[in-house]
Amino acid sequence: MGLLIRGAAVLTMADRNRIIDNGEIAAEGQYISHTGPAGSAPDRDYDRVIDGHGMLALPGLVNCHTHAAMTLFRSYADDLPLMQWLEKKIWPLEEKLEPEDVYWGTLLCCLEMIRSGTTTFADMYFHMNQAARAVEKAGLRAVLSRGLIGAAPGADKALDYSRRFVRDWQGAAGGRITTMLGPHAPYTCPPDFMRRVIELAGELNVGIHIHLAETRTEIEDTGRQYGKTPVALMDGLGLFELPVLAAHCVHLTAEDIRILAEKQAGVAHNPESNMKLASGIAPVTALLAAGAVVGLGTDGAASNNNLDLLEEMRSAALLQKVATMDPMALPAFTALSMATVNGARALGLPDVGLLKPGCKADIILVNLQRPHLCPRHDPVAHLVYAAHSADVDTVIVDGRILMEKRQVLTIDEEEVLFEVQKRADRLTGK
Amino acid sequence: MGLLIRGAAVLTMADRNRIIDNGEIAAEGQYISHTGPAGSAPDRDYDRVIDGHGMLALPGLVNCHTHAAMTLFRSYADDLPLMQWLEKKIWPLEEKLEPEDVYWGTLLCCLEMIRSGTTTFADMYFHMNQAARAVEKAGLRAVLSRGLIGAAPGADKALDYSRRFVRDWQGAAGGRITTMLGPHAPYTCPPDFMRRVIELAGELNVGIHIHLAETRTEIEDTGRQYGKTPVALMDGLGLFELPVLAAHCVHLTAEDIRILAEKQAGVAHNPESNMKLASGIAPVTALLAAGAVVGLGTDGAASNNNLDLLEEMRSAALLQKVATMDPMALPAFTALSMATVNGARALGLPDVGLLKPGCKADIILVNLQRPHLCPRHDPVAHLVYAAHSADVDTVIVDGRILMEKRQVLTIDEEEVLFEVQKRADRLTGK
Repeated sequence: MGLLIRGAAVLTMADRNRIIDNGEIAAEGQYISHTGPAGSAPDRDYDRVIDGHGMLALPGLVNCHTHAAMTLFRSYADDLPLMQWLEKKIWPLEEKLEPEDVYWGTLLCCLEMIRSGTTTFADMYFHMNQAARAVEKAGLRAVLSRGLIGAAPGADKALDYSRRFVRDWQGAAGGRITTMLGPHAPYTCPPDFMRRVIELAGELNVGIHIHLAETRTEIEDTGRQYGKTPVALMDGLGLFELPVLAAHCVHLTAEDIRILAEKQAGVAHNPESNMKLASGIAPVTALLAAGAVVGLGTDGAASNNNLDLLEEMRSAALLQKVATMDPMALPAFTALSMATVNGARALGLPDVGLLKPGCKADIILVNLQRPHLCPRHDPVAHLVYAAHSADVDTVIVDGRILMEKRQVLTIDEEEVLFEVQKRADRLTGK
Repeated sequence: MGLLIRGAAVLTMADRNRIIDNGEIAAEGQYISHTGPAGSAPDRDYDRVIDGHGMLALPGLVNCHTHAAMTLFRSYADDLPLMQWLEKKIWPLEEKLEPEDVYWGTLLCCLEMIRSGTTTFADMYFHMNQAARAVEKAGLRAVLSRGLIGAAPGADKALDYSRRFVRDWQGAAGGRITTMLGPHAPYTCPPDFMRRVIELAGELNVGIHIHLAETRTEIEDTGRQYGKTPVALMDGLGLFELPVLAAHCVHLTAEDIRILAEKQAGVAHNPESNMKLASGIAPVTALLAAGAVVGLGTDGAASNNNLDLLEEMRSAALLQKVATMDPMALPAFTALSMATVNGARALGLPDVGLLKPGCKADIILVNLQRPHLCPRHDPVAHLVYAAHSADVDTVIVDGRILMEKRQVLTIDEEEVLFEVQKRADRLTGK
């Protein structure tokens, strides 16, 4: 019974950056049951033995912020100012979205994530029943939230939808799906509405996924309207007494950083989206120094334009170095921690992102036998500074193999590409 | 005779961002003989017909600045301050380098470049006869220079080596190899030495590849010593009367930018190296606005840590957007121009980087039928913002196929990985 991975270099993330050169990982059911050197795993009949020679085994990557179905709009609108991008390009397409579009868009997102080593992601969008269906099928782990715009006419309906969505999907797919409430942002959810959301989250016992302090405009507008920063405004409403996943956190005061760290809010840092939309550079080094819980996210494919966390790790590390003019800022292992164990903490999943007994068996194998990963000096530096997503060979979630030798086993790739292209053509009037 | 590519979407870079949806490219010998829509190529017996359906055909990428053999030190020393990195890590290894090490390190560089769609690169290192041998074998196009340190005891010998190197290799490998002189930088090559280099370059009729204005320290030191910026200092010596390839150009005054643009010096922008070493952010937007010739480079694999120009395009575009806080800065097509036609201009290769009759037949095919490149809205945005190097399917240089369906035909991959690992282990004392 169970699964055994043999011969791989194993990076558990549980013992700093120590690598077991020729290691073994055993899993029973959904959980890791053992990690250690060659020959140390219990001697039994495993259902499946995977040869990991030449591979690096590590926890699956955790994408803390995306809008999965926006894969439908990938490369549809680039190099534009934010409001023009939203008003002229994205919103008109979103109005035409049908529930089934969200299913296929999310399935494409899952397919891309599996192929790039991501095993868990946090999503905020709408038609979330369809997104949940796609996650269930793909075999990934996800934290799903229905986006809420308090200022919009359908706010009450969306809140009702969220309540039902949490009841229907919290803990579904064998526990792979958890849920949050998703108030979009302070500037779209006024304090009265936020109070209702916070109350409902307490009642349902779920966390809150929100965009926070993303742009200068948001800071200026919130300051003008409330005389506070977005973080202070949310703190005053009691948001941070709940588990929170705060995406972006680009423009922060020292006091904001202190609040986020003290309340142990999860921060989803999205360096490539922040660069591409010219939102700014998040003070990640200062957040980490203050003890904040910082994970990594890609944001949606309409503003990135891929969902590749290996690339996002690299961008996070490089951007902090140049922003602080310190080549030692955000070193490789810290970036990798953000993309695994710290990201999982930010999502409220303490048994994810680590390879140790009792943790979820979410494991990826990365093929190190590649020209761009040669010679082998430091596999962690390779992963963060040189690898790309096609180096991910095998992906396992809950002890189940989702991809093996780059073949995704849970999703019909051709069908997804066909369906998404067809729907994208309909949406853009082709 | 010749080669025909059929069915691909063709981006010639000669007609702005126009794409021929179902195009044809014909090559005879080393040159493109035709580009146009389906059915337009001369009807003849081609030696080879390549099916490009589902692919985007474009000029091979041009890497304007690297130190090829430093692949040997990839991920050997990261997240360190520049001087500690050089003095404690890189220089001690470089002292132990044997000529054959440079051959294998450069061959690994060539292998990685072919696999990531680069067809031309500019290299500065030492034991350059070995680097040239590797380029000849790999089938790539390269502009090679022997690095010169004017302040070092071996300066005269290195200058003699350069003279012989230019005579032996200029126009070699069927014209694929051209040469430059490679004075390392103003701070390692004092004015007297630079004058000798400039004179020799004029005598040999070759250009000059130099590091320029890379770090704040360089600006401060040059200012203290000469009362000038590095660019102004070099201008005063007459450097820019020759064809120049100036790497980095991170810290520039308005007057420096004016000089570089007016003299049409080639600028090699290396965004990821500049970020990783915390050198700073080059004013690329201002350089382009002034009419400068700006290409892209990866720098060596010890400071990047890969040689992936697709990634470098993305980093260049994202970094300019966030640095200028303008999402319209350095749009996708501009980034792609830097990585192709403008890079080739920076290297003094006017018939490279464009797919039009009379230009060199350096062509790559990128597979667009990938989950992370779906749906197909804008192939140029896909290429710059979403693609990764494993999407490059086929690579052609001088009309010769170097890689087909991701199989490199000119290099024995296993042998290179084995030789490089063996030598890296020797160098690091393993």
